[in-house]
Amino acid sequence: MSEGILAGFGLIEGSAFVAAPLGGMTLAQLGADVIRFDQIGGGLDHHRWPLAADGQSLFWAGLNKGKRSIAVDIRAEEGREIVRALIEDTGNLLTNFPARGWLAYEQLSARREDLIMVALTGNPDGSSEVDYTVNPATGFPWATGPRNLAEPLNSVLPAWDVAMGELSAIGLLAADRHRGQTGQGELIRLALSDVAFAMVGHLGRIAEAQLGGHDQPKDGNYLYGAFGHDFITADERRVMVVALTARQWRALVTATGTGEAYAAIESATGHDFETETGRYEGRDLIAAILRPWFAARTLAAVREGFAGTGVSWGPYQTFHQLVEEDPRASIANPMFEQIDHPGVGRYLAPRSPLDFARLGRLPVQRAPVLGEHTEQILGQRLGLSGREIGGLHDRGIVAGPGTPG
Amino acid sequence: MSEGILAGFGLIEGSAFVAAPLGGMTLAQLGADVIRFDQIGGGLDHHRWPLAADGQSLFWAGLNKGKRSIAVDIRAEEGREIVRALIEDTGNLLTNFPARGWLAYEQLSARREDLIMVALTGNPDGSSEVDYTVNPATGFPWATGPRNLAEPLNSVLPAWDVAMGELSAIGLLAADRHRGQTGQGELIRLALSDVAFAMVGHLGRIAEAQLGGHDQPKDGNYLYGAFGHDFITADERRVMVVALTARQWRALVTATGTGEAYAAIESATGHDFETETGRYEGRDLIAAILRPWFAARTLAAVREGFAGTGVSWGPYQTFHQLVEEDPRASIANPMFEQIDHPGVGRYLAPRSPLDFARLGRLPVQRAPVLGEHTEQILGQRLGLSGREIGGLHDRGIVAGPGTPG
Repeated sequence: MSEGILAGFGLIEGSAFVAAPLGGMTLAQLGADVIRFDQIGGGLDHHRWPLAADGQSLFWAGLNKGKRSIAVDIRAEEGREIVRALIEDTGNLLTNFPARGWLAYEQLSARREDLIMVALTGNPDGSSEVDYTVNPATGFPWATGPRNLAEPLNSVLPAWDVAMGELSAIGLLAADRHRGQTGQGELIRLALSDVAFAMVGHLGRIAEAQLGGHDQPKDGNYLYGAFGHDFITADERRVMVVALTARQWRALVTATGTGEAYAAIESATGHDFETETGRYEGRDLIAAILRPWFAARTLAAVREGFAGTGVSWGPYQTFHQLVEEDPRASIANPMFEQIDHPGVGRYLAPRSPLDFARLGRLPVQRAPVLGEHTEQILGQRLGLSGREIGGLHDRGIVAGPGTPG
Repeated sequence: MSEGILAGFGLIEGSAFVAAPLGGMTLAQLGADVIRFDQIGGGLDHHRWPLAADGQSLFWAGLNKGKRSIAVDIRAEEGREIVRALIEDTGNLLTNFPARGWLAYEQLSARREDLIMVALTGNPDGSSEVDYTVNPATGFPWATGPRNLAEPLNSVLPAWDVAMGELSAIGLLAADRHRGQTGQGELIRLALSDVAFAMVGHLGRIAEAQLGGHDQPKDGNYLYGAFGHDFITADERRVMVVALTARQWRALVTATGTGEAYAAIESATGHDFETETGRYEGRDLIAAILRPWFAARTLAAVREGFAGTGVSWGPYQTFHQLVEEDPRASIANPMFEQIDHPGVGRYLAPRSPLDFARLGRLPVQRAPVLGEHTEQILGQRLGLSGREIGGLHDRGIVAGPGTPG
């Protein structure tokens, strides 16, 4: 079995919640040796929902797969020195802890000049912010929901944290490339609000607002600027149907036999459904013609009717339906494996979505138990003797697995 | 001015819509030389909404900043040969076009053995899928929306496309590092459904469903597993307030003077609001106590009252309010610059959110006009003479800017 495309890349991670852990895990699942350090007893995310029946965090287990764990008393100077020595040894640090005091770049790089450090913050000024407080500011919650709803609606997926986690990995790899060429390290700052507002800009929403466009109103499950809508099937399932391109539109019209109806509507209204703008402006008419077609068919019949037609569509699924009905979320998909989570049970866990034709994908490694690798790391990476490690344990500076959290 | 941390990294991009263009742009904004090739007249995303008043796509302009553009007839063998020669010259290809036939890895790598190619698809079997059809399958739309809403709700932000774009950049950089060490190229396949379902797994939702947990019900703007909720202010604005950690909870209680009320509720109900689970289970009670505090204050008074307290909160903003009221989305934030978009006007455009302490951030470069760099690229990269380039123009194999789209 291959070592993974990032074999030899080491990273120290001091983190909590989604973005920093996801950034580290993304690299760990590509073969990097990622050591997450935590306060003895666990960090702020150690009990984050969803939880297993025994209270263990399925969230923590999901976002720390393939890492090694060291538990250290980072409130004590002796514990901090252990973390600093690991950072010096590894040369790469990813953290969403405050990058000051004992974790200031100036201090750390004084010991290792070519250090690469990615420091995540809420806002560019270093103040705090989480996905759930940044998202309301982006504009998207006011554009989400049924047409006549008077309230903004948050995203349940922490999408900005996800984007930030991936960007932190990009920053690390880009700086590693630069260090390879120049020998220079880097401090990279990344703010969650910058990640979010940059994306609002990239998607054209800032320009639209500044150039006098109206704010996109809440529009249910209609897609903005072309045709896309949801429909109820005969067995009371829901499906989403999209005609973003002219080819998708023609496929949809052909598969549902609605060509004559649409020709009549185009001629009566002047809409041109061959164009994206025409489909967007005529979206209520398009949906009204399609609705009976779906209402007369079960989800299975829709699936059969659209197979091989080029129609762009998909079923709505609950989390349960995803794991019970969708072969893409099963071991039929080589991305997924069943893993054992100590004390919790077996469940499906994903490898990296990146599939390397030559090197393959690394097998899933479960998340560590907190402190699982404390002794191994102190011995291997810092060269401490068993006696020295025992002393650290005795003084409460480090902890192995099984320490109450 | 620095060249950027990815100076010297070249990429050919054959793309449309969000993921592949975003992946290429993320690298371009770090200094990579990214050449996007398009069919003469523009690709499928050339007129994607939002649009400017003159019909130009603000979406296209947003997702292609800092790239160079070559317009080629990729339906003609002679045009395809130009693209293949550019790929051979550059050694890196990112595409969401079908990776077969003239764009098959086997063909391309026969000409450049160490080629790195990232091939994006909808599903792992190569079939098509877009963000708007994958998202319904993930489970999130059934967990989004007001409590008693009977329908699923899509995300307006194409979050899976965003994650896929960033992951494609990670794949390119990881493979580039590996090539530097081994001389080997790679073909990397990445499917949108894998990106989405892996994230559902990373966040613990697959394990929760498989281990017998219930599906998280729609719960308005409550945060899952701790306390977070939205409130209306005296001036009819909305704010989101979060108490994910015990410290945030204590700050909120102190700032709003609700300590006595919560102590009474804890003693009456048995909830322990010091724990995440306690705050989640008592979320309706917590919100009911806080509601009058916000109703009695304007947004400005809330902002003043929370300043320096450690309360985690933020205002809801429309896209307009974001650009009109939020200094983080203005040139007061060094991430943003005003740029000129030919024929459209001036608006705020973001640099990379990654801020490099040593190298700085590159200035924003607007998106190219389609075909703006056709002649430059043919001359510089392929060494064609003016006469040869003129011949390609005459035969309609390439086009410069200004060709009707």
